[in-house]
Amino acid sequence: MTATSDVLVVGGGIIGLAVAWRAAQRGLGVTVLDPCPGRGANQVAAGMLAPVTELQYGEEALLRLGIASNTRYADFAAELSAASGLPTGYRACGTLAAALDADDRAELRELHDFQQRLGLEVSWLNGRECRRLEPMLAPSVRGGLLVSGDHQVDGRLLGAALLAACERAGVRVHRDRAAELTVRQDRAVGVRAEDGTELYAGQTVLAAGSWSGELPGLPAGAELPVRPVKGQILRLRMTTTTGAPLPGGPFLSRNLRAVVRGCHLYLVPRESGELVVGATMEEQGFDTTVTAGGVYELLRDAHELVPGITELPLIETSAGLRPGTPDNAPLLGPTALPGLVAATGHHRNGVLLTPVTADALADYLTTGVLPPEAAPFSATRFLEKHSSEKHSSGKPSPDKHSAEAHAPDTRSAAPRTPLTLAPDRRSADRTLTEATP
Amino acid sequence: MTATSDVLVVGGGIIGLAVAWRAAQRGLGVTVLDPCPGRGANQVAAGMLAPVTELQYGEEALLRLGIASNTRYADFAAELSAASGLPTGYRACGTLAAALDADDRAELRELHDFQQRLGLEVSWLNGRECRRLEPMLAPSVRGGLLVSGDHQVDGRLLGAALLAACERAGVRVHRDRAAELTVRQDRAVGVRAEDGTELYAGQTVLAAGSWSGELPGLPAGAELPVRPVKGQILRLRMTTTTGAPLPGGPFLSRNLRAVVRGCHLYLVPRESGELVVGATMEEQGFDTTVTAGGVYELLRDAHELVPGITELPLIETSAGLRPGTPDNAPLLGPTALPGLVAATGHHRNGVLLTPVTADALADYLTTGVLPPEAAPFSATRFLEKHSSEKHSSGKPSPDKHSAEAHAPDTRSAAPRTPLTLAPDRRSADRTLTEATP
Repeated sequence: MTATSDVLVVGGGIIGLAVAWRAAQRGLGVTVLDPCPGRGANQVAAGMLAPVTELQYGEEALLRLGIASNTRYADFAAELSAASGLPTGYRACGTLAAALDADDRAELRELHDFQQRLGLEVSWLNGRECRRLEPMLAPSVRGGLLVSGDHQVDGRLLGAALLAACERAGVRVHRDRAAELTVRQDRAVGVRAEDGTELYAGQTVLAAGSWSGELPGLPAGAELPVRPVKGQILRLRMTTTTGAPLPGGPFLSRNLRAVVRGCHLYLVPRESGELVVGATMEEQGFDTTVTAGGVYELLRDAHELVPGITELPLIETSAGLRPGTPDNAPLLGPTALPGLVAATGHHRNGVLLTPVTADALADYLTTGVLPPEAAPFSATRFLEKHSSEKHSSGKPSPDKHSAEAHAPDTRSAAPRTPLTLAPDRRSADRTLTEATP
Repeated sequence: MTATSDVLVVGGGIIGLAVAWRAAQRGLGVTVLDPCPGRGANQVAAGMLAPVTELQYGEEALLRLGIASNTRYADFAAELSAASGLPTGYRACGTLAAALDADDRAELRELHDFQQRLGLEVSWLNGRECRRLEPMLAPSVRGGLLVSGDHQVDGRLLGAALLAACERAGVRVHRDRAAELTVRQDRAVGVRAEDGTELYAGQTVLAAGSWSGELPGLPAGAELPVRPVKGQILRLRMTTTTGAPLPGGPFLSRNLRAVVRGCHLYLVPRESGELVVGATMEEQGFDTTVTAGGVYELLRDAHELVPGITELPLIETSAGLRPGTPDNAPLLGPTALPGLVAATGHHRNGVLLTPVTADALADYLTTGVLPPEAAPFSATRFLEKHSSEKHSSGKPSPDKHSAEAHAPDTRSAAPRTPLTLAPDRRSADRTLTEATP
């Protein structure tokens, strides 16, 4: 069997589906290839939309991309809900970044200065002001940054809504795994699915998250420097053990962040009553095992920031894989192989960057040009460097002042498992609790 | 519909099934009433067989009962496996009780003296000797007691094997809940099931675990002083995250116990590679919610005792209900209501006491007399006291040197939920992790 489209999107996570939706809106014929569309790393992600709170030194271009995406999010979510008939869980709640000790406070103060120099809207609060906003905060909180424009969305709802919007927009979804990229005369012309179907397309978009570097058939020199970065995450319920609302008002009213023992911690309270607590950062290959240590450290750190979490039901523990790149920024647009276009490597920012990525790729697919905010993230920017290092681990260089440099991989010392080919979307082990009898 | 047996057992947990099996072996016609036979609190229990390690001052009679049961366990397990064709997970591995600091060491030394006065077989080891036996122990372990006769069994396998043995022995299993005890002329004559079936019997055995005090129709004065004591427990896997055996030998070779911050902690390593870590003790009514605090404290304490657990996969978190009594000992034999016989209230010792309970009840059901080791645990021993206090909480009196006195209920400060009627066996919320892709 064969099928031909203008655009074939390999990978139906939220990035792939959003690109497909936007491309179909521009009149292109689009096919998405994925065994479980809508169920990528977004199933695990907390859904923080926090470009300002998560700002890192040296990542101003990524900040601009993040802000561009964040600015569009309310409209994107509204349009998506209207197109799909489904909710996205978008919530304009703001984010509080709290400091637990004097060191944290000094670091947050520096970040605040940097944010102010960049003209970002951020307020400094003392400890008492933080606790007035969030009464469950630990008494030890010394101060914090209130970022009123950093919000949240529900990655699971987003995936379901994007899938429905794609189907309503005429996107064809082929539910299977990719077996091999098809290359004719040094040009990507599509992909063969595992069921043998030949899917041909004028342009093939590689949006396979952590597996984007693993697709068989990628010619030498066209590989993408993407590696999986494991994150473990918890889901609690902000109700009493009998399911009743907690007395005395909401448990948390906005996203909460802190750095505890050098590790980034965030708590994302949803309207539904779910409280997401994340996340570890682990270089473990394609392993998605939930470990005792990962769960322990998240609970320990969250307990230090918000002692009252001990009383909340623990509903789910899970692990997913972020598609990391050498500079933690995405790979967008043309690759070294004509006909093959990248929309991957979003690392910790996949949910945030979905709207801007979809718009940028739709531009590229229709005009051949990336918009200015996406141009710094060309998929070929590592080409020379990567080709000389292509047998290295792909880890960021140590002098890069990146997220990993802030949060070294100390959460687990388990041996790194070898990379194995698993080109599907099942990036999560999930742990669900049955309803209380 | 009606059905008549010599014996009706209300509750098909391991106690009820073992009583039914033994009674059927003595030639009695037996029916078990339970919606999910074999799936009571045994689904959650760690399966430690540790009467000597868990000895409490003032509980010598319970020690004798426990030792009587422990002594029979190897034969019981072998007979059960032969009768059912199924494994029980019985493992004669011994138990090490470790002291983490000088206070623990002093307390364990006192326990050792007490055990020696009672003539029990226990060896004192210094810290180095402990670590030679169990190399994963924390360097801070100061010493410990090796109890070579305290073993383990797998409560889940035990339940399945008992159910199969019952069915092979001709026990009828009616899969439904009990609606009401049937009383005629001041005598229990059976139970009406929720489907309307009238189950009549010469003798009705109440083996409904934590729900034993909740059966409708129990006349005033015949209620049993049983309350649920919640326990949260974890299951880890002693393999690498890829499922391979750990390098360098077994993670733990025997049961491990310690008192950490006043809470009893135990780690039970199974032949299958499962490592059970338990357990909280919480007075929360019939609540079986897994909480962030319960999981956190178990992981924290286990990490203090065996730091290497952080690398192990966390497979399951669950909570079950122990049927507690005012003195933490079981209720065995005749009750205040003729025709109604008790086999309940086993608190933390249900798995351990299954063989001796089954033998004692079979004796009583056939001869009308309890054997000497069971006589101190008459179900009527609280009668006067209980009838004067029957509207109280049923908690043990504070002067009792009981397990609760050692381990006060500090693990959770959540509000106590009201007792609700839930006369079924679903005493567990379970959390299962899918296989790693």
